[in-house]
Formats: sequence, structure tokens, C-alpha cells
Amino acid sequence: LLVPKQIVKSANQVGAVTVAIAQSPVEYTGRLGKLLLVGIGPGNLEQITPAAKTAISSADAVIGYSLYINLIATLRRPGQIIEALPITQETQRAKRAIELAEWGLTVAVVSSGDCGIYGMAGLVLEELRSRGWDGKTPEVQVFPGITALQAAASRVGAPLMHDFCAISLSDLLTPWPVIEKRLEASAAADFVTALYNPRSRNRTEQIAIAQRIFLKHRKPDTPVAIVVSAYREDEKITLTTLDKMLEIPIDMLTMVLIGNQSTDVHQDWMITPRGYRLEG
Amino acid sequence: LLVPKQIVKSANQVGAVTVAIAQSPVEYTGRLGKLLLVGIGPGNLEQITPAAKTAISSADAVIGYSLYINLIATLRRPGQIIEALPITQETQRAKRAIELAEWGLTVAVVSSGDCGIYGMAGLVLEELRSRGWDGKTPEVQVFPGITALQAAASRVGAPLMHDFCAISLSDLLTPWPVIEKRLEASAAADFVTALYNPRSRNRTEQIAIAQRIFLKHRKPDTPVAIVVSAYREDEKITLTTLDKMLEIPIDMLTMVLIGNQSTDVHQDWMITPRGYRLEG
Repeated sequence: LLVPKQIVKSANQVGAVTVAIAQSPVEYTGRLGKLLLVGIGPGNLEQITPAAKTAISSADAVIGYSLYINLIATLRRPGQIIEALPITQETQRAKRAIELAEWGLTVAVVSSGDCGIYGMAGLVLEELRSRGWDGKTPEVQVFPGITALQAAASRVGAPLMHDFCAISLSDLLTPWPVIEKRLEASAAADFVTALYNPRSRNRTEQIAIAQRIFLKHRKPDTPVAIVVSAYREDEKITLTTLDKMLEIPIDMLTMVLIGNQSTDVHQDWMITPRGYRLEG
Repeated sequence: LLVPKQIVKSANQVGAVTVAIAQSPVEYTGRLGKLLLVGIGPGNLEQITPAAKTAISSADAVIGYSLYINLIATLRRPGQIIEALPITQETQRAKRAIELAEWGLTVAVVSSGDCGIYGMAGLVLEELRSRGWDGKTPEVQVFPGITALQAAASRVGAPLMHDFCAISLSDLLTPWPVIEKRLEASAAADFVTALYNPRSRNRTEQIAIAQRIFLKHRKPDTPVAIVVSAYREDEKITLTTLDKMLEIPIDMLTMVLIGNQSTDVHQDWMITPRGYRLEG
């Protein structure tokens, strides 16, 4: 209470007035908040689902890494709160989004690709769970998007046509032995493999270890696609082979697709047959 | 030649007229053909990328399985050739699409989900390759779409947040031992796993074998999501556990998502933490 309860009464009149002023811990909007967890695909407006576009345009607030916020600049509505936070602050973004939703706002949290694949959807749900969320307020809706492996695949042909794995080489939150075990499993069981976060400025060895693991199980000339910024202006596509893949520049924005034993290249197109070679 | 070459000349005039009529093996359109390989996502118009919509609307001909053709009925343009073929005739659809493209038409070949993930993109490219395609004519463009594992995941929360595999249980074109090896590898390396084509009328045992393999490596109460027809009118979502999953009806239109050892359920939401339990 900022002003304690006071009862004001005139001696010669019937009735009284009671006054007290309290400050609410959150702003009152008269609405229940919503969290829209939105995947914007590779960043090109032609590759964002209409549902995701509407979610972004309808939100009171849009929160995301500044690069992605810029990619969807034309979807913004005047008067929207835009909070573009640096790339390292994923947990802060999740907390901030929940805070605004608790005020009663509709908040769009944007991720590149699919928000549920190495994106923000899981982080926001984890944070809600840790706060004892009842599963209903704020309301949550998840909007899938074209993820990096699909964007890259579509630019080189049909490399994912058979069983595939997605593996992130970032060992920031996952112990490296777990990742290495998965690389081994994927290589040995002949999955087409998509490597997310293949290399960063400080993390350069993991991609070389991945290559060595795959070379134990697959031929040196196994096709590999290296795709940077699919569907963006600076898109760069290289088809190479497993033994030569480290000659191509690879960074955090690169998707590496390693073919299985049946994957082939025909005239700049990478194709994994749907049928498996039945002779072995 | 239907009418042999004839030279007509008048005795008292200068010059002559030469006439001959031949039938071309393909209709002449004066254009080079195009093949647009289009993923339409789960089938709800809100989940189809604008690029895919434009591809379908702009095509001279649209070819696909009749169920998917119906889902996109409102995108059709008057005068388009529509060829809806039964579900078993994938190779015939690919051949027919190429035939029309060789006439000079722009042909959209539609698949549900992502056309490059167990879809038509690979089949069309395989068929082109077998015909000695030069990689340029007909021109090919691939349009990715929201695939079943993403559609299902977005309806139950964020189950795919960590490394995952897609495995088709259909052994029509893949020897069962290869599939079983992949199930083992995925289960042992703790991948979140999406099972495509989990069961058909004649193929009922594979899903039971998959369950047994996962139970060797994961706890009986591992969360499993069973999602039928995500984003369609008859959508059906069930969250269950690995030991009880066979109690839920599963058919060809069902997506089965098996969590990893860290996946949890909180208030009807399935969440795989992005960070890996570092103590385990």
C-alpha cells in the first residue's frame, strides 16, 4: 500500500468515502497473456508460414536475436514493443518474454528455422515449468518453421530422402562424449546426417572429429553439402566430399549435410535414393 | 510426316509454296519446362510457405496424391491441369510430371510435409537422373515444407529441442535389418526419435519391435507423443509413455515422437531440455 486506507466522513452528511492506493507488481492490461513461440524459417519472407507471419504481426511485443528481428522487419506493426537482444542471451530472452506475457501482453518470441529445433520454444517452456506454470496462463502456442537442414537440403536437391539425424556439435550445454557417441551411432547406422553449429570462432576441432568418425564408416567420396545462409542474400552452396569437406569455410551459420552410403551427386544435384540398395 | 513435302507453283507466277506436315512427338509450347517439387506441410493453408503456394498457383499442371490435391484445392487456378493419382503410384507420378515438363509445361509435384523428406523430390530427381538429365532442362526447383515431425512437435510443446532422428518403419524399399539397426543406434545414443510410417494395415509388427528396442535403452515412463493429422480437422494428440504407447491407435497418418532420457512432461506439454543433464 502506497497510501494507507483512509475513511473520510463529513459530520453532517450520510455515508463515507474509503480511499487506499496500492501498486500492482505488474501493469494491469485486463487481458491474459500469450506466448507465441515462432519459427521464422531461413529468414526469407517467402519461406515463413502464414501462421508465423500472423503471429508476429499480431503480437504486442516481439523478442528475439537482433539478426532475426531484422530479417522480419517488414512484418512489424507500428506500436509494437521490439526487444532485440544479443545472441548469447537466450535465457534472458525467455525470462523477459514470460515477464511481458504475465502483464497480459501477447508476446512473439522468434527463432530462426524451427523454434522447436535448437530454438527458443524449449527454453521458454523450460522456464515456465521452473516457475510452476499451470500449462494454461500464459497461453502458449508453437509455430513451426523451415529448419536449417530443410532449407539447405532444398537448395541442393533431395539429400534427406532416407532416414536422417540432426546433431549439434556445440558442447556448451551437452558433454562432448554424448555428442561423439551420437556421431558414431549415426555414421555406423548409415543415417544421412545434418550437423548444426558445426564450428564457431573458439570451437574448431569438433567438425574435424566428426569427419574422422564418418570416414571410419563411409567412403571418402561420400557427398557432403555445405550450405551457408540458405535463401538469404549471402547464400553460398558447395557440394564436396567427405574427405575434402574441411577445405570449405564452415562457421556457425553453416549447415553441413553428410550423405549416406547410397547418396549420389548428379549434375550439381545431391540425391539420396528413397529405396535402399537391396543388394547390401 | 503426315503430309509429305509438296511444292506448289503456278505456271505464270514467280516463286513457289512448299508445304509439309509432321507430328511432333511432344506438344510444342515454345517454352522450356519446369519441375516445381513442392512440400505443402501438414495440409493446413496456414502452414504452407508463400513460396510453395505461389509455385502451386503458377503451375500449368499440378500432380499429386488425391488427398493432398484436395487439401490445397483453394490454391488452384482455372485452366490448370490437375492429375490426382492414387497413393501407390509415386513412380508413375514422377514419370508423368517429367513428361509434361518435357512438353514445356511448368509442373508442380506436391507432397505432404517436406517434399524432400520421404516425399516426391527424391523420386523425381532419381527419375531425371536415370534419363540422363543435364541438370538444367527441365529446370528443377525444390520448395521445402513443414514435415510431420515438426507439425506434431509444435502441437505438443518442444520435444525435438535436442539431437533427433527420423526413421521410417516402412520396409517396402528398405531391408528390415537396416531399419532395426537404426532403431538400435538411435535408442542407444539417446536421440529423440520420430517414427514415420509407423504402421499400416498389413504392417503391424514393426512398431512393436521398435518399442521393444527402445525399452532396452530407455525408462518405461519415457514420454511419447502420438499425433494424428496435425493441423487438420481430424487432429488427434495423445501424450503417453514408452511402455503404454501400443495402447493408442497408430496408423500411416500417425507421427510417433519418442523422447530422450531427459524429455519430460509438464501439464500436457512435452519438453526436451536444450541442456543435457551434465551429471548423467
